[in-house]
Amino acid sequence: MSTAGIQSTISADPAVRPTHDVAILGAGGLTGRELLDLLQAHPGLRPRFITSDRNAGRSVGEIFPQLEPAYPELCFSAHSTDIPPEMPVFLAVPNESALELTPHFIKQGNPVVDLSGSFRLHDRQIWEEFYRLPHSAFEFMDRVVFGLPELFRDKISVARAVANPGCYPTGSIVPLYLLGNLREQIQSVVIDAKSGVSGAGGRTEDAGFSFQSVYENFRAYKILKHQHQPEIQEYAAHKLAGNFPCEIVFTPHLLPIFRGILSTIVIHWDAAHIPTADSILNTIRSGAAQEPFLRVYDEPEQIELSKVQHTNYVDLAVRSRGSVTVIVSAIDNLVKGAAGQAIQNMNLMLGIPETTGLVASFA
Amino acid sequence: MSTAGIQSTISADPAVRPTHDVAILGAGGLTGRELLDLLQAHPGLRPRFITSDRNAGRSVGEIFPQLEPAYPELCFSAHSTDIPPEMPVFLAVPNESALELTPHFIKQGNPVVDLSGSFRLHDRQIWEEFYRLPHSAFEFMDRVVFGLPELFRDKISVARAVANPGCYPTGSIVPLYLLGNLREQIQSVVIDAKSGVSGAGGRTEDAGFSFQSVYENFRAYKILKHQHQPEIQEYAAHKLAGNFPCEIVFTPHLLPIFRGILSTIVIHWDAAHIPTADSILNTIRSGAAQEPFLRVYDEPEQIELSKVQHTNYVDLAVRSRGSVTVIVSAIDNLVKGAAGQAIQNMNLMLGIPETTGLVASFA
Amino acid sequence: MSTAGIQSTISADPAVRPTHDVAILGAGGLTGRELLDLLQAHPGLRPRFITSDRNAGRSVGEIFPQLEPAYPELCFSAHSTDIPPEMPVFLAVPNESALELTPHFIKQGNPVVDLSGSFRLHDRQIWEEFYRLPHSAFEFMDRVVFGLPELFRDKISVARAVANPGCYPTGSIVPLYLLGNLREQIQSVVIDAKSGVSGAGGRTEDAGFSFQSVYENFRAYKILKHQHQPEIQEYAAHKLAGNFPCEIVFTPHLLPIFRGILSTIVIHWDAAHIPTADSILNTIRSGAAQEPFLRVYDEPEQIELSKVQHTNYVDLAVRSRGSVTVIVSAIDNLVKGAAGQAIQNMNLMLGIPETTGLVASFA
Amino acid sequence: MSTAGIQSTISADPAVRPTHDVAILGAGGLTGRELLDLLQAHPGLRPRFITSDRNAGRSVGEIFPQLEPAYPELCFSAHSTDIPPEMPVFLAVPNESALELTPHFIKQGNPVVDLSGSFRLHDRQIWEEFYRLPHSAFEFMDRVVFGLPELFRDKISVARAVANPGCYPTGSIVPLYLLGNLREQIQSVVIDAKSGVSGAGGRTEDAGFSFQSVYENFRAYKILKHQHQPEIQEYAAHKLAGNFPCEIVFTPHLLPIFRGILSTIVIHWDAAHIPTADSILNTIRSGAAQEPFLRVYDEPEQIELSKVQHTNYVDLAVRSRGSVTVIVSAIDNLVKGAAGQAIQNMNLMLGIPETTGLVASFA
Repeated sequence: MSTAGIQSTISADPAVRPTHDVAILGAGGLTGRELLDLLQAHPGLRPRFITSDRNAGRSVGEIFPQLEPAYPELCFSAHSTDIPPEMPVFLAVPNESALELTPHFIKQGNPVVDLSGSFRLHDRQIWEEFYRLPHSAFEFMDRVVFGLPELFRDKISVARAVANPGCYPTGSIVPLYLLGNLREQIQSVVIDAKSGVSGAGGRTEDAGFSFQSVYENFRAYKILKHQHQPEIQEYAAHKLAGNFPCEIVFTPHLLPIFRGILSTIVIHWDAAHIPTADSILNTIRSGAAQEPFLRVYDEPEQIELSKVQHTNYVDLAVRSRGSVTVIVSAIDNLVKGAAGQAIQNMNLMLGIPETTGLVASFA
Repeated sequence: MSTAGIQSTISADPAVRPTHDVAILGAGGLTGRELLDLLQAHPGLRPRFITSDRNAGRSVGEIFPQLEPAYPELCFSAHSTDIPPEMPVFLAVPNESALELTPHFIKQGNPVVDLSGSFRLHDRQIWEEFYRLPHSAFEFMDRVVFGLPELFRDKISVARAVANPGCYPTGSIVPLYLLGNLREQIQSVVIDAKSGVSGAGGRTEDAGFSFQSVYENFRAYKILKHQHQPEIQEYAAHKLAGNFPCEIVFTPHLLPIFRGILSTIVIHWDAAHIPTADSILNTIRSGAAQEPFLRVYDEPEQIELSKVQHTNYVDLAVRSRGSVTVIVSAIDNLVKGAAGQAIQNMNLMLGIPETTGLVASFA
Repeated sequence: MSTAGIQSTISADPAVRPTHDVAILGAGGLTGRELLDLLQAHPGLRPRFITSDRNAGRSVGEIFPQLEPAYPELCFSAHSTDIPPEMPVFLAVPNESALELTPHFIKQGNPVVDLSGSFRLHDRQIWEEFYRLPHSAFEFMDRVVFGLPELFRDKISVARAVANPGCYPTGSIVPLYLLGNLREQIQSVVIDAKSGVSGAGGRTEDAGFSFQSVYENFRAYKILKHQHQPEIQEYAAHKLAGNFPCEIVFTPHLLPIFRGILSTIVIHWDAAHIPTADSILNTIRSGAAQEPFLRVYDEPEQIELSKVQHTNYVDLAVRSRGSVTVIVSAIDNLVKGAAGQAIQNMNLMLGIPETTGLVASFA
Repeated sequence: MSTAGIQSTISADPAVRPTHDVAILGAGGLTGRELLDLLQAHPGLRPRFITSDRNAGRSVGEIFPQLEPAYPELCFSAHSTDIPPEMPVFLAVPNESALELTPHFIKQGNPVVDLSGSFRLHDRQIWEEFYRLPHSAFEFMDRVVFGLPELFRDKISVARAVANPGCYPTGSIVPLYLLGNLREQIQSVVIDAKSGVSGAGGRTEDAGFSFQSVYENFRAYKILKHQHQPEIQEYAAHKLAGNFPCEIVFTPHLLPIFRGILSTIVIHWDAAHIPTADSILNTIRSGAAQEPFLRVYDEPEQIELSKVQHTNYVDLAVRSRGSVTVIVSAIDNLVKGAAGQAIQNMNLMLGIPETTGLVASFA
């Protein structure tokens, strides 16, 4: 239960003094709060303009008392797009708003990371089916890069607009992608994911998220209907010749905790092409070897939320038996699943070292 | 968070006045406690002899203050098998002890419900592999009936010895069995089960079950190695011509709660024989129709632990899409997963109405 | 986490077959739910008419799935006072409604237990100050008996209307009252009480009771302003010549749990009249000796919520040092603090043995 | 649930580049972990030598996975005192060890902050009564400064050895000390303190701290016997002519959460000298005005653990009525109650700006 694991003192290096003032639109929610929290220790990005209609005119310290010392002067403004064209923008707003704002900032030229789901899917029909909205700006879809650095680092580095991945997809796509060409031998994939309340989209005022309805309880939700399934389906196929070899089954659950997502991924291999346990493990290890935020453990029983909370890691481990492989992965939905990955993307877009503000270092 | 749901006042009927004094061996643990709790309201069974080496000589009220009023005189004895041959016996002891005690009571003629895993599997090699013990009394295996009334009600009614099912298997076998002959069309089954600490076998003194290691945390355990997998595998095939059509993948997880197991069961159907959503639902509904402890809901999102805690129900619901069916089931691991089912079995063995002490009724 | 501790099979005695059909007005909330839960096992009281505007027309099982088996036919009605004059009534409604309904049923002659705070204080000015309401029926105050059996058993037995005590007052008044005449030597009393969310009056929809605002958090509330302070102040003086010798300081706190209230009561004695530790302990023990629902422990460290949850007990223990005495008490706010005590009161009013439905017994 | 609130980028000032390598003895526990966590972001202190017999030879990342990125090379050593005389030392060891080690490092000249209770009390008899140990080095007591900067900043700045205060005393002494000379008018003080498990001294292996004994439960402990009472009693009198005017009553409780201590302090004033509410509030506000880590709120209902978790703040607020004043204070027991305050003390001892590593700043 700590966050310092992701604080940076690279700033001790005068060469990387704060240079970019950034804007956070929709900074009054959990994601906005996490961005402010992490950016305290980022030497290259300084929150300068933050909006929240509900909290307009109030100081950061009033709304987030733990963050008071870091932002003694900063106050929330009412919603506004009056932002200089060079200022980097984090969008932590609902899909309806992001559908307008992301195109606006693309046109105006601001580097923008959109944390909503608005620009993550390239099949308009599927997007509108799962988000239950008409997509009013689909022509911009191809101008927004999917912000999963482990897959799209090069594209992100030259992008002006990034769609930050969903929390569930981050914990599911990365392990599947690490299987490389072995993915072609997959017969079926079943993902059972469990998230704390901060990742399950609960609003404080929803009865479904009252203490008494969550505590000493557990349930699944949006079964075969969750909008993150098509996102996993699309990007788990990255660098494959065609589509992903099967329809992925994804089931989200609500954990009576605050923070973290654990995903249990069960793969059945094509009986005619079952890879060896070693080849699977080696493929995953080599794929993860150079990645600063991936940790591969020896035993899947070692994977637990307490190891990744308040970090930008994806922890994972694998076990195989016969034609079955089980991969367990864990992330912090608010960090690698949202604000941390958004900063990682913004670092790449701005040419700042990728891990700045996310990994401490005494180098 | 209530238990009265399973209290009986059938006892208002003078015809069912307390008749059987029963013994509980190993009554000092969670299962023993739950048996004492439930039996308070059972008009036909009266705990008379209870053992616990650790608590020998102390009263029920000293060890379980909530139960003090129901058992003002009852005290724990040190372990002993000096029990009259007609006295019904509940065994809530470790496997090592049950391997000796169950045969002993069978020979002596006591009606016995063994809550351990000792006599649940008919493949000796698999039993010894998963329980990591030599099985010293395998010749008794066929004399012990698997105590899942929804499958073996008739056999249990004439049995002298019953092996009470494991908590995870109860929540998994019942839904699969309800599929009847549709099971023959199954291609794969992935069961992702999550249990509160009372069902995950944690001892109070295990560091792995300290508040700080469980709270605000979540993890999987015994991946592809849990002893309940072969139990599910064997009995999920009940009344099928041969074995279950595929190897079932079972992954248990530890929830930061006390009580309850939710199982998410994902079925892939043989592409050549995909049943319709209606046929699946109808098969399940008709199979459950006459069962006093099965509840089928319309939507799988309605299944949650809070609905079954302190009850003897198996709640379940199903959703299908294409070649995939998801069944979500929920039980209280200490009731339908242990003590409640043990009482249900003992009722059947003794010719007491099956639901006595488990379902209230003003009839 | 059990409730059977309070289930009765006294019903095994055919002499106490169900006789009274009862009404519960406002049965859709936590208190109404607890009443239905406990009454399942009460052989003398049968819920027959229950109201809840929000749940009108729906069955008990739809709203409270754990209670489905006990009430297969019972449904909620919209609010109505059309109840036969002899039918006992439990009022689990807000103060505004109880101010009208309690007088109505008094006039109509129904035995009524009012679980609201409307008729608990005999100083109108104080009542209106703390409840922030005009009291529209103060002339009925003297016709309603304060339903704390340990203080007013005889009056309750002949009463037609009872004001069920508040949850905090129950855990505080009883220990203070047990001090008998020693109370005259008290210089100051500081009560620090901590309640689970079910006792802190939180509505599911209050943001202040969302999972995220309660979990891993703790706070005090209504400091020097809680409406239960004057209730404690008034009744803690019971059987004293005059008023309580000092102004009692009462501070409530919100625990991140569901059920239970622990009160830490610190007494400073008049320096000139400090009773001995033995005299204090003996006075408490003798006062509690004949009470079916009071348990006095040797050490205050033994008092914990888990021992009283789902029971009708007040557990307490005392330690003294110099001029200071600390009493720790624990109750279940929904049982002895609400529904259980309401049943205890109704039993007394109807001439049913006081502990019926609240203490199991194999006698 | 965040820590970045206490991260520093003062390091942006090149003048404060890492200069001191520090040692942490007993770094394998919760306090050691918190020191490593906070020091990641401290530009002036760099953990170089850390000991833990249990974890000897293992890396920081193995034991504390969240801290892996900050300490890629650092490993735990077995216990040793072979440390250069100029290296600052944090002692996070049991009292028995600190009784030897603190004198050792004093003699050797290392700046040392002792987080144990060994050198906090100046009455040997009381120390030995409450700690249940003979004090083998009492002659060193006067050479160790009590490390509460709000009281002893000047002494700490010139000290070589500091006794870091207990977690409970920090949250109680500060509010009482802020009352200044008003303390002379106090008649009685009752402190009711509630701590998460990380502050209640529970070992992972204690049954009393198992998930099942803490969750959905609450209890008081060490009533009138806790070793922090004499510590509060001694230092709450700081700068008073004589001793504290009364014996302070202190009762600790165990909260089912991980982190934080909330203290409810009830003061009765001498009837002949009751200060006005304004004078009390103004005295507290003026005393806190210049303190970097004290926050005074308008309403005591605003004080909650979530506002101070992972920060070095003492939050407090006050309400008075008649002769009674209630002060509510909150701290993070692992930060201001342990590791954070230890760093604050070490900063003072080494001439580093006091808030370095504890308060972020973009100045």
